[in-house]
Amino acid sequence: MSEYTASEHLECAAGNGLLDRRFFLRSGVGIATLGYVLREPAKADPLPLEPWMTAPNGPLPAYDRPSRFEAKVVRGGSGGPPGLNPGLRQFPGVTNIKTPLHLLTGTITPGGLHHARLHSGVPDIDPDKHQLLLHGLVKRPLVFSVEALSRYPMESHIYVHECGGNSELMYEEEPSKAGVMGIHGQVSCSEWTGVRLAMLMEEAGVDPKAKWILAEGADASAMTRSVPMEKIMKDALVALYQNGERVMPSNGYPMRLLLPGFEGNMQVKWLRRIKALAGPTESRDETSKYTMTHPDGMSTQFNLYMEAKSVITQPAPELKMRGPGFYEISGLAWSGYGKVVKVEVSADGGKSWAPARLEGPGSMFAMTRFRIPWQWNGGPAILQSRATDNTGYVQPTRAALFAKRGPWSNYHANMITSWSIASTGDVTHVYA
Amino acid sequence: MSEYTASEHLECAAGNGLLDRRFFLRSGVGIATLGYVLREPAKADPLPLEPWMTAPNGPLPAYDRPSRFEAKVVRGGSGGPPGLNPGLRQFPGVTNIKTPLHLLTGTITPGGLHHARLHSGVPDIDPDKHQLLLHGLVKRPLVFSVEALSRYPMESHIYVHECGGNSELMYEEEPSKAGVMGIHGQVSCSEWTGVRLAMLMEEAGVDPKAKWILAEGADASAMTRSVPMEKIMKDALVALYQNGERVMPSNGYPMRLLLPGFEGNMQVKWLRRIKALAGPTESRDETSKYTMTHPDGMSTQFNLYMEAKSVITQPAPELKMRGPGFYEISGLAWSGYGKVVKVEVSADGGKSWAPARLEGPGSMFAMTRFRIPWQWNGGPAILQSRATDNTGYVQPTRAALFAKRGPWSNYHANMITSWSIASTGDVTHVYA
Repeated sequence: MSEYTASEHLECAAGNGLLDRRFFLRSGVGIATLGYVLREPAKADPLPLEPWMTAPNGPLPAYDRPSRFEAKVVRGGSGGPPGLNPGLRQFPGVTNIKTPLHLLTGTITPGGLHHARLHSGVPDIDPDKHQLLLHGLVKRPLVFSVEALSRYPMESHIYVHECGGNSELMYEEEPSKAGVMGIHGQVSCSEWTGVRLAMLMEEAGVDPKAKWILAEGADASAMTRSVPMEKIMKDALVALYQNGERVMPSNGYPMRLLLPGFEGNMQVKWLRRIKALAGPTESRDETSKYTMTHPDGMSTQFNLYMEAKSVITQPAPELKMRGPGFYEISGLAWSGYGKVVKVEVSADGGKSWAPARLEGPGSMFAMTRFRIPWQWNGGPAILQSRATDNTGYVQPTRAALFAKRGPWSNYHANMITSWSIASTGDVTHVYA
Repeated sequence: MSEYTASEHLECAAGNGLLDRRFFLRSGVGIATLGYVLREPAKADPLPLEPWMTAPNGPLPAYDRPSRFEAKVVRGGSGGPPGLNPGLRQFPGVTNIKTPLHLLTGTITPGGLHHARLHSGVPDIDPDKHQLLLHGLVKRPLVFSVEALSRYPMESHIYVHECGGNSELMYEEEPSKAGVMGIHGQVSCSEWTGVRLAMLMEEAGVDPKAKWILAEGADASAMTRSVPMEKIMKDALVALYQNGERVMPSNGYPMRLLLPGFEGNMQVKWLRRIKALAGPTESRDETSKYTMTHPDGMSTQFNLYMEAKSVITQPAPELKMRGPGFYEISGLAWSGYGKVVKVEVSADGGKSWAPARLEGPGSMFAMTRFRIPWQWNGGPAILQSRATDNTGYVQPTRAALFAKRGPWSNYHANMITSWSIASTGDVTHVYA
């Protein structure tokens, strides 16, 4: 049944044990050697009658929750699991709530576990009182209620959302010990549904002189960012739904701005105000933060698109290896310029690479899951992943990124991550 | 900017106000006439400072929950909202928990709101003690723990899951008043991740004489169904993850069987046992239920594939119309034979039809969301939707389905649903 010959079974796709991505898609290939069974019973039906099979359980939740045995699968952040920038603890409501990437798979992030960068806590907004104002360089200013907006035609899209400061720990001189959640956990992916902002802007009658907008949130910091009008008219959404239900509180309930591919902070949550303007506002949130200083000493503001990136989520520093043998290396890849078309994986610190199998909707700005089989011999290994997007852009090494951009930024840290596997099974973050 | 001329703006795509599905995708078309604003303010920035902007809020949940203002967005079922089959109340743990389709949009169902048909409650399974046994006509019986299974390569797929008894109220003589949740709420869609069951079966060494399997769940009813071996070896998954996180308790935690396109009941939850057999078992659950009697008096068992179907979720009986004007008609469509390639909508009870705009991943067995703009004149209307799948199959009327299958079944009720709109704004279920 196999399309492989015996010798091909054992052939690696790249150094240090990486197997062909299609290895397990061929029926009958190498399966008998996997053998991760608990036991091989002798009797016909040796399973004990478990206590949970002896009686039906109690009341059912109207809104289901994960099993109590999964209580560890939560977001990390302020005062909690690793990865918090300690400086953030000084300000009430300012935190990074990160997605536990090492405990999740697939491409969709459950609403309960979506990351959230908060500048002043999560406002407890009454949707019947929330208003969205369109004003500035428009023919007629308009105010929308949630109810009014809900009558407009909507669109659903699966979009990645990544904080502009995600992975900022990759800029540190020594490799961060924060784990994949702590380093990379400010990226998530949801199916968002909302109203095209262009439709509302046209209804207000945008003045041709208006080239930017200012978007303001209804949190206690009134977080504001400037966005080019071109993006607003192209594909910006006012999102009311996340994975089919209303947007989660920490992600902007009852409405948020969505700018597919742009850095997360610009996609203002708890959206209350859009002001059409001739230029950018240079607001506090876009001058004190989200600016990058380059090797020549110049700084760039408005670093709009998040570059192509990938990260291995299994194995990860939070997950100790269980001895030599077969593993599936798996991770996430995305690009703010469109979509990922290739992810390569290395088990020898970048000396050799093999293409991973890609999963996901494959639509623009959606998340990609990659998987590749690996036979770990129990010796030292350095795992890396490298994404290529539809523009041909290839995710750079840390050295290449620093050479181009300098080491002084906190943002757009899309360099290749290296997980070092020790013979003890410990996984640590290294610069390689 | 528009590709339409003025006269085309007003032209209907079908009778009684249905507009072209691309109406709002053309920039600048007809927007100024929509005008569902709350108000047109006179001043430059008239928004009041809302109380939630005056201070950051308290602790953040490590696992986010919907806003307290969305407390009505819950599953319906036993003892709760409409739609429960009263007969089910007599048996402890036996119920239908339904998805509130009228309150959701997009194509992904949040884990908290996925429907669940329960035959004996939701077992509270300790994943460290749960075991999966493969036995019967195999070379060597195998027992897998959750930990062991988690070491196998996995696949992620977005699949619809529909109960074989979904929409059974459509067989009733009088149109059910249960609303879209009560009538049709046993369908949901998730991104599922798991291990190919074929891989495990090959490891056990399936005897060529084994043409069926028996799958058993670890609920208190030990729910069992027979499945053809061909399906098991083709694309069956043992799913461990739902929308990226571990499978929800009422959907089979820690593992369930997934058979893309097959009726939901066969996709056994809390999967504990797979027995390879020469033929079907004729178990209690597949003889007492899930059998259809046809006009000639013959009954068919093992009605494997769920046929193509669509249902309008907005408007719906649960949602009163807010007066004449523009509405977006939206709904869900799916097919167990693959995917939906067309959904047509009628506003005049099936006299004329217009194609809706389709959204979703577009992959096999994934959910499709359809949308079409409608200008309601305030007069009587009957809304219907009709799906066509990739095999060419067209969703039948209730009369056509009865002519072919007879009116005696409880299962596979995929006939066209009709929502009658009264000038009062009330939406009711009718047979039309």
